[in-house]
Amino acid sequence: MKTNQNQLNDTIFPKGDAASADYFTGSAWVKMLVPDDRSFNTVIGNVVFEPGARNNWHTHPGGQILIVTHGIGYYQEEGKPIQLLNIGDVVTILPNIKHWHGASPESEFTHIAISTNTQNGIVDWLERVTDEQYNSFK
Amino acid sequence: MKTNQNQLNDTIFPKGDAASADYFTGSAWVKMLVPDDRSFNTVIGNVVFEPGARNNWHTHPGGQILIVTHGIGYYQEEGKPIQLLNIGDVVTILPNIKHWHGASPESEFTHIAISTNTQNGIVDWLERVTDEQYNSFK
Repeated sequence: MKTNQNQLNDTIFPKGDAASADYFTGSAWVKMLVPDDRSFNTVIGNVVFEPGARNNWHTHPGGQILIVTHGIGYYQEEGKPIQLLNIGDVVTILPNIKHWHGASPESEFTHIAISTNTQNGIVDWLERVTDEQYNSFK
Repeated sequence: MKTNQNQLNDTIFPKGDAASADYFTGSAWVKMLVPDDRSFNTVIGNVVFEPGARNNWHTHPGGQILIVTHGIGYYQEEGKPIQLLNIGDVVTILPNIKHWHGASPESEFTHIAISTNTQNGIVDWLERVTDEQYNSFK
């Protein structure tokens, strides 16, 4: 089955809908590409973060894989330093690892987010990433 | 865990390795992004097809999702007409559906291929797509 996604300017996908302010700090957009079902057990969305935007700390009961398609971003697992992300980077996030991701302060950032093993759950949202945590990148 | 993939020119990923002539007609390249394991049950690769190149008929025991990132391609399920694919298209392929995909005759074509539920298997390769089948697009 083919689903057509209109192209917008030089990006692969349209920006989609505004991400929930309950789970994101700053402006971000989510374009759902593949909804949850028991045939694929996989949820895929494209996420665009404005500079400085990031999601809350969270975990995925079935894990998640990020594919960076544009810009420069941040990824952090609890207890570890922030990692810088660039186009073509792939991040594999094991089930139940507490983490967050978002744009760097000066660049928009886009990734495809692939939640895996969604028969076990998709995401559990936790507290916000503070400015002190966000600004700890060295 | 972050894995760095070097960027090549204006594409997201490097071309990777030549695809096996046993399973592809024409020239194609495969860059493995996420290998199989039992944490994610997901295999992800980036595939670049030269104009006219396509893979053999095949099935996925656990299904597959294609995300088109560049060019114009073809997708066909057995018993149905060829569908044209453009940037931003998403193709969901249910488990055990016999199908093939590849570039259109005049354009290079790139997709990210996400094999799902790989605890059930990844791919079963079948016969080649004949020129008559490939040229049946209307």
